[in-house]
Amino acid sequence: MRVRSLLFVPADRPDLLAKVGRVHPDAVVADLEDAVAPAAKDAARATVLAALAAERPGADLVLVRVNPPGTEWFAADLEACAAGRVDGIVLPKYERVEDLEAVRAALPSGARVLVGIESGLGVADARPLLAAGPDAVYFGAEDYVADLGGRRTAAGTEALYARSAVVLAARLAGVPSIDEAVVDVRDDEAFRRSAALGRDLGYQGKICVHPRQAELAAALFAPTAEEVTAAEEVLAAAATGVAVVDGRMVDAVHVTMARQVLSRAGRGDPPP
Amino acid sequence: MRVRSLLFVPADRPDLLAKVGRVHPDAVVADLEDAVAPAAKDAARATVLAALAAERPGADLVLVRVNPPGTEWFAADLEACAAGRVDGIVLPKYERVEDLEAVRAALPSGARVLVGIESGLGVADARPLLAAGPDAVYFGAEDYVADLGGRRTAAGTEALYARSAVVLAARLAGVPSIDEAVVDVRDDEAFRRSAALGRDLGYQGKICVHPRQAELAAALFAPTAEEVTAAEEVLAAAATGVAVVDGRMVDAVHVTMARQVLSRAGRGDPPP
Amino acid sequence: MRVRSLLFVPADRPDLLAKVGRVHPDAVVADLEDAVAPAAKDAARATVLAALAAERPGADLVLVRVNPPGTEWFAADLEACAAGRVDGIVLPKYERVEDLEAVRAALPSGARVLVGIESGLGVADARPLLAAGPDAVYFGAEDYVADLGGRRTAAGTEALYARSAVVLAARLAGVPSIDEAVVDVRDDEAFRRSAALGRDLGYQGKICVHPRQAELAAALFAPTAEEVTAAEEVLAAAATGVAVVDGRMVDAVHVTMARQVLSRAGRGDPPP
Repeated sequence: MRVRSLLFVPADRPDLLAKVGRVHPDAVVADLEDAVAPAAKDAARATVLAALAAERPGADLVLVRVNPPGTEWFAADLEACAAGRVDGIVLPKYERVEDLEAVRAALPSGARVLVGIESGLGVADARPLLAAGPDAVYFGAEDYVADLGGRRTAAGTEALYARSAVVLAARLAGVPSIDEAVVDVRDDEAFRRSAALGRDLGYQGKICVHPRQAELAAALFAPTAEEVTAAEEVLAAAATGVAVVDGRMVDAVHVTMARQVLSRAGRGDPPP
Repeated sequence: MRVRSLLFVPADRPDLLAKVGRVHPDAVVADLEDAVAPAAKDAARATVLAALAAERPGADLVLVRVNPPGTEWFAADLEACAAGRVDGIVLPKYERVEDLEAVRAALPSGARVLVGIESGLGVADARPLLAAGPDAVYFGAEDYVADLGGRRTAAGTEALYARSAVVLAARLAGVPSIDEAVVDVRDDEAFRRSAALGRDLGYQGKICVHPRQAELAAALFAPTAEEVTAAEEVLAAAATGVAVVDGRMVDAVHVTMARQVLSRAGRGDPPP
Repeated sequence: MRVRSLLFVPADRPDLLAKVGRVHPDAVVADLEDAVAPAAKDAARATVLAALAAERPGADLVLVRVNPPGTEWFAADLEACAAGRVDGIVLPKYERVEDLEAVRAALPSGARVLVGIESGLGVADARPLLAAGPDAVYFGAEDYVADLGGRRTAAGTEALYARSAVVLAARLAGVPSIDEAVVDVRDDEAFRRSAALGRDLGYQGKICVHPRQAELAAALFAPTAEEVTAAEEVLAAAATGVAVVDGRMVDAVHVTMARQVLSRAGRGDPPP
């Protein structure tokens, strides 16, 4: 999957969904969870699925973020998405492999499942949780820090450990990883700084909460020419049976990641 | 437990113990470990327990830090505390669940046991160690860094990983967590900075090595009005059987933490 | 082992090997891996082992970095080193305990094996990997960050989690740890800054990629008078059967580390 930009839009705002094509994010997420108040959940679910059935938003992937397992809305959200015109779902507050398995079983074959690691338990268990094979993962710093009873700061030191642990677990599982949000949508400089550290850490894209951020992310997370060349070498080696490139073993995870780089660069299909 | 301030006083200084009421820390700890030289341990033990029997210091909780398991003083320290007029003990250099169990068995029912995670092994095993259920945990950065053969700095970068790992493990176990010490007691600004990062990370209080620091900690770790409101919502939901607040499941750990917030705010009893 | 400076020299540059005695690093590593192109591996292997047979470089330890297990050169590298005039090998990209065991079995008794933790899997499994007992470990930040698809920066925030995890795992295993490289060999100030943080974290030495860095590392990682005194106390206590020094249990790991401190200070033999 290529997810440089994962743009969230409130599920009860089909007008905003209709506009995302202007920036064409890699993935758009109609959010039934944090963006919708409890009393409005059922109406928002109906609204968004009707809107998606009527017109596909302008994004490579069209996803719906369901409410978390254990909430009263989860089953209905999942059922509606399984029957609806979506490419997959986003599973927030992912903490149990069984929940991923249940979601996979409920959705059509080929549906994408992105998960959010955004709680103490999720971070602590990130390695087995991601080894279960979601299609991508985002790190939700706001929720993580809230779950620990901490506070968010501009420097982000309070979340560095968790942000580092999640991208490492994603690497081990060969799962594309999407960096934390910057909630002040007017502060492009804060977004650039955060995206730079996210990329330094190994994240392949960023949560976006405004179309402007999706434009920035597309540029900031595009692979460099050097990264594209390295990925092409890995794929060429794998195709000819050569096991080593630049002193490194080429295994299945490297092939997956090389395809992700080329996909981020707009070359070739993303890995299945 | 409400432990915004955990004030350490040398066990052989009953004159200082008698004065802590002026700042009334959440917990005062008469320290038989680091604060007392080996040759003075037996005398200090007798002195402090006699002083505590004669007059209760002015703190919500009155604790004694015993010497670590494996030292020649541990058994006598524990026995004296079990028979003495204390609310519980502080177990330093906690590295083995068996030690916590042995301490629990030796103390009267209801006695509090705070543990110190302050070694490489303690940090690496923090999750199972805290899952065993101490009443609170402090992170001892000085000892941790010394154990790794490192050096303490003002910035504290050398301990960020461990400090982050301990507060996460505490969250998973629902155990209140107390942040590292600032040893320069004259530097209020350093204490404020350190307390700010501690709170950002999710710590609920701070080790204090001077009464002045206990005053600062009480203010710096007081919950905000927003935190109090959120905690009240969680308890109200739990009381009425509602399972979700603000899109989050309300489980036993959330109830415990909500009570801790209200307790820190001086509202309601701390959780048992 | 005393490894304040671990100086890497390309294996196909025997002229440089002959000069390292000017700075006399604790260990010199003739590098068959990253420093040698695939087409030149066989020639470099023959060249370096002939040079080492003819003249021992001026370093306490003379090592060869072999290519990683799984590469086509690994078996030949190992066989040549086992028969050659070297004190041991450096095993890069260490990810499986079996690889260490196989290397130990192939080398003469007493040969040293240093390992490199420099991949996502290596960092994630550092604790069991180092518990298997290599003679020392280095943290390879460049490779680690590349493996995660990240980018190296001067600040190094992207590798702090892994750098902290490796030194902790090394401490738990009682294995000396060697800090990451600074690749800009002209920037002494960057090397000093990086070495300072490495020492703060608990690392005992540093990878050096230029003789100048080896001189700097020898000075920057020399133990202080205070560290030497503490180490002498631990060894004196262990010799007389005393189990506690300064409130801490003295166990086998402490004895090993005390010997390492004295060895770094040039006093006494390094631990076996």
